[in-house]
Amino acid sequence: MPPSPATDLPARLLAAWPAAAWSDVHVLVALSGGPDSVALLRALLAAKQQVGGAGKLFAGHVDHSLRGDQSTADAEWLAAECRRLGVPLFIEKANVGEVAEVRGDGMEEAARTTRYAILTRMAETLGARFVALGHHRDDQLETILFRLLRGSGLRGLAGMPATRPLSPSVVAVRPLLGVGRSEIADYLAAIGQASREDETNQDAEVAARNAVRHELLPPIRGRFGKSAEAAILRTAEQAAAAQLFIDEQAAALLAECQMVHERSAAGDTTSVTLQTTPLAEAAPLLISEVLRQAWRTAAWPEQAMTYHWWRQLAQFAQSPENASPLNLPGDIRASRPAPGVLSLRRGTLS
Amino acid sequence: MPPSPATDLPARLLAAWPAAAWSDVHVLVALSGGPDSVALLRALLAAKQQVGGAGKLFAGHVDHSLRGDQSTADAEWLAAECRRLGVPLFIEKANVGEVAEVRGDGMEEAARTTRYAILTRMAETLGARFVALGHHRDDQLETILFRLLRGSGLRGLAGMPATRPLSPSVVAVRPLLGVGRSEIADYLAAIGQASREDETNQDAEVAARNAVRHELLPPIRGRFGKSAEAAILRTAEQAAAAQLFIDEQAAALLAECQMVHERSAAGDTTSVTLQTTPLAEAAPLLISEVLRQAWRTAAWPEQAMTYHWWRQLAQFAQSPENASPLNLPGDIRASRPAPGVLSLRRGTLS
Repeated sequence: MPPSPATDLPARLLAAWPAAAWSDVHVLVALSGGPDSVALLRALLAAKQQVGGAGKLFAGHVDHSLRGDQSTADAEWLAAECRRLGVPLFIEKANVGEVAEVRGDGMEEAARTTRYAILTRMAETLGARFVALGHHRDDQLETILFRLLRGSGLRGLAGMPATRPLSPSVVAVRPLLGVGRSEIADYLAAIGQASREDETNQDAEVAARNAVRHELLPPIRGRFGKSAEAAILRTAEQAAAAQLFIDEQAAALLAECQMVHERSAAGDTTSVTLQTTPLAEAAPLLISEVLRQAWRTAAWPEQAMTYHWWRQLAQFAQSPENASPLNLPGDIRASRPAPGVLSLRRGTLS
Repeated sequence: MPPSPATDLPARLLAAWPAAAWSDVHVLVALSGGPDSVALLRALLAAKQQVGGAGKLFAGHVDHSLRGDQSTADAEWLAAECRRLGVPLFIEKANVGEVAEVRGDGMEEAARTTRYAILTRMAETLGARFVALGHHRDDQLETILFRLLRGSGLRGLAGMPATRPLSPSVVAVRPLLGVGRSEIADYLAAIGQASREDETNQDAEVAARNAVRHELLPPIRGRFGKSAEAAILRTAEQAAAAQLFIDEQAAALLAECQMVHERSAAGDTTSVTLQTTPLAEAAPLLISEVLRQAWRTAAWPEQAMTYHWWRQLAQFAQSPENASPLNLPGDIRASRPAPGVLSLRRGTLS
């Protein structure tokens, strides 16, 4: 049988993520057992056999225990497959319900946060530089449209990045972002590799994503053709480039604002102080971004800070001295304690 | 009968476009005869009666003659309505087919270009400061989604601007961008005002827009609710703000490049020369934008200059001196005639 394009997945992976970047360092593949992560593992393994190098491949599975006995069966299946492939597998249980309760987030969001935290720790323990994730082109499309409909703004529209730092020593990579769901299925069929169904739950986000996949993408593909998908992905790339540019400009401006970040000894109060003179002539959009970066330094919650709040805070940062303090979501209070100074404070001792 | 919210259209128009901006200058309403432009005329007329002022209202109709006798009937109907309402109506015929042939654009694009040119000239002749356009919230949504699917990038995603200069003395305004199609229909019903069907043709763009309206927006509304529409519009606002910021940064950078724009006496060669030293440290996205602005100064065609071409030209502008010239769409050639100099030239004498 002549090699079919589907069996080229290792080559396509290498084109997106050149071996020079990873063959000499350890890589942890995030393995759910679903077709995407199994295909990623197999393609990476095949690429590894081609290119050699001193780095090792590991597989990491996070068991969310959302499906009871099924979760155990999934873990056992993965253990058998990884033994067969000669890839060391590490499994860790996550108690997602607890996390969701503590953080007040949706179940899906909590599961994701927990999963990344576990994979990051696992990679650090193993000395792995990369955590490889199986997200593909259709995931990306669905993410972009889902975020557009949910109002995640320009940053959301940028989609999932191909690489993203998870910690000072660990980077997440998505080498299959250019590969479609059906191509992954073809690859698995071509190499005779089975996979499990992905874990799902009844979370509203999952339902909304399924609606994007099953109700929105079919008419887009049917009426506007394949070129529409490429158009959406290209716009997302442009949004990402624009957002990166704005982020960089904001970081340079923030550096001029002499930010001071303080935390009380008891840890119950954090504050951020900025000199606002460098902001005087800046565009509102840039000021919002500077303040968002300052906010992030303090690790304050961002979810309730809508576009509108950022704009209001940006205006406040340009308001005359001694303006009345501004109360913001997350129990944060903005004030102008002295000329040219903006103070943001969270906690009891305001 | 108590006043329904639909009859508040004049009030909503005034909220979006305060009378102070227009009551003392003349306004030309672009009147196709369709429900949107007729509602705009009636709402603006009602608002005018409320607020007074020295400015007059005019109506301008561009007859595209795409529907033969129907076009004549439309014009006659409009003339009768405007007489009844006491609004002076000006009608001008456009030969769109000819324009499309000359410019090689799609029919719809050519019709739009011609329409705006005629309305601008009409406004200048009448001494009108504004051309008021009837585009509404659903038009905006459809435009954003249509452009997303066609790949018009961040600039396209920004949607139609609420105001846009058409010439040094004439500005286009869209005071109904916050009003939905059904609200416009309700308003017309409430005041007992008839309207005509909008002119349509069999252009591919019109078909694609209809597909957005009839096949894409219903599942979005059905599954994601009204909030999804607001989310799309908010993202478009952010895209517009980001694009404006980038445009401003690029304009400042272009000013440093000492652009020289020359046209041969015979008009068959135009060239643009830039100093590239200021571009050395700039982000690729910004360089693309600087080059696009230089391109626009020369009024060269942009349609074939895709995202990819701009990026390639941006790279060329940072390439070493004496690099091989780069041939670009539209018979334009980029070269590096001297250290730190980029030359763009169109025409026979390259």
